Amino acid sequence: MLLLVLIMDIAPGYRPPTLTVDLVMFRIERGVLEVLLLKRAAEPFRGEWALPGGYNAAGETTVEALGRVVWDKVGLDLRSDVGFFEQLCTVDTVARDPRGHAVSVVYLGCGFGLDLPGGSQSHRFWPVDALPELAFDHAEIIAYARQRLVSKMSYSNAVSGLVDSTFTLSQVQAAYEAVWGRELDKRNFRKKFLSLGLIEETGGFWATGAHRPAKLYRFRSSELEILPSPF
Amino acid sequence: MLLLVLIMDIAPGYRPPTLTVDLVMFRIERGVLEVLLLKRAAEPFRGEWALPGGYNAAGETTVEALGRVVWDKVGLDLRSDVGFFEQLCTVDTVARDPRGHAVSVVYLGCGFGLDLPGGSQSHRFWPVDALPELAFDHAEIIAYARQRLVSKMSYSNAVSGLVDSTFTLSQVQAAYEAVWGRELDKRNFRKKFLSLGLIEETGGFWATGAHRPAKLYRFRSSELEILPSPF
Repeated sequence: MLLLVLIMDIAPGYRPPTLTVDLVMFRIERGVLEVLLLKRAAEPFRGEWALPGGYNAAGETTVEALGRVVWDKVGLDLRSDVGFFEQLCTVDTVARDPRGHAVSVVYLGCGFGLDLPGGSQSHRFWPVDALPELAFDHAEIIAYARQRLVSKMSYSNAVSGLVDSTFTLSQVQAAYEAVWGRELDKRNFRKKFLSLGLIEETGGFWATGAHRPAKLYRFRSSELEILPSPF
Repeated sequence: MLLLVLIMDIAPGYRPPTLTVDLVMFRIERGVLEVLLLKRAAEPFRGEWALPGGYNAAGETTVEALGRVVWDKVGLDLRSDVGFFEQLCTVDTVARDPRGHAVSVVYLGCGFGLDLPGGSQSHRFWPVDALPELAFDHAEIIAYARQRLVSKMSYSNAVSGLVDSTFTLSQVQAAYEAVWGRELDKRNFRKKFLSLGLIEETGGFWATGAHRPAKLYRFRSSELEILPSPF
């Protein structure tokens, strides 16, 4: 209460928008890029699908609020289930929430092999290219998130969030193909991707049935790495 | 007031953080990367330098709030004075403002030939490598903004905000050198930069004194362009 009085004192009549957080969580399943959605149980947009998200109160950071919200609503643990995670953008158009002006800080995450407890009618992954009707401006947010992921995979190691901790070159190529939505030339991809210096051999092999065992790789860094400039 | 009641009805006891906006505005002056700072006239941090920024009230977007604030405080017109402009990040640590939890949406801008009316003791550009004592977490924000600009210039046409609408290759190289803080090999830079396909000849020439006239170029797109992937 004292805090509120102090703020009012500095900016008389100031009233902030509501602050919310939302998560765009991607995974690849059977070669298809999917995004986590939640069926809304309450108005507005009751019964429609939406990104998992919720209110951010004074006194908690956006990541704290998001961690709380996605754990409560879909059983996702941001501390362990996410391979690539970053702030995507803050969306702020005044009419985006019929309840009043709500500014949302949106995060982008990628997970490998994610399966959620109780995923069912109330929350599940949907193929990004076959989404249901979406609440709020969430269709735009997902389109922007995908575009960011497409771009980021062309100049960084962001693909690391979509593959296992060790992987074959075919698996990393399949992740690129799922996100970019087009096939890549195998020989050219291998040569160029290896030349970026992002990954190293583990010494192990991936053996499946009749195929020749394939070399296993891992990323050199678990942090986001931006490729060096061309000049 | 009705709006507030509606929100309270949906999330009883919910109190949002204060929302603010801040601008990291870069320019290059005599080969040096500079950032726009404002001397704070009021507590907290009275007399210290800070990014231009202010409150974002319910009912205005972050860009609207920022446009209002920077016009009022430093006479900068976001609609005409900025060559490259994008949302940088949202900062949200609880203790960053001693008045209470303030979440700030930060924008990054670059301008060419920017000169501000009345720039003086109260607001001026400072060399990024020789900043004064800074209020709040603004030193960290500026470091992050510079890092983003460094990265972005390696995979996009973001340098366009730091040069005139037509320019020589030497001028664009100088902009890279100012941001990256190192000299680039002239022949290699020209070859690689031209090969990116971001710019085209205007047909005109830049003539200075005894030197051979240099070809003038312009960017093909005024929108942000991400370079194609290497594979």
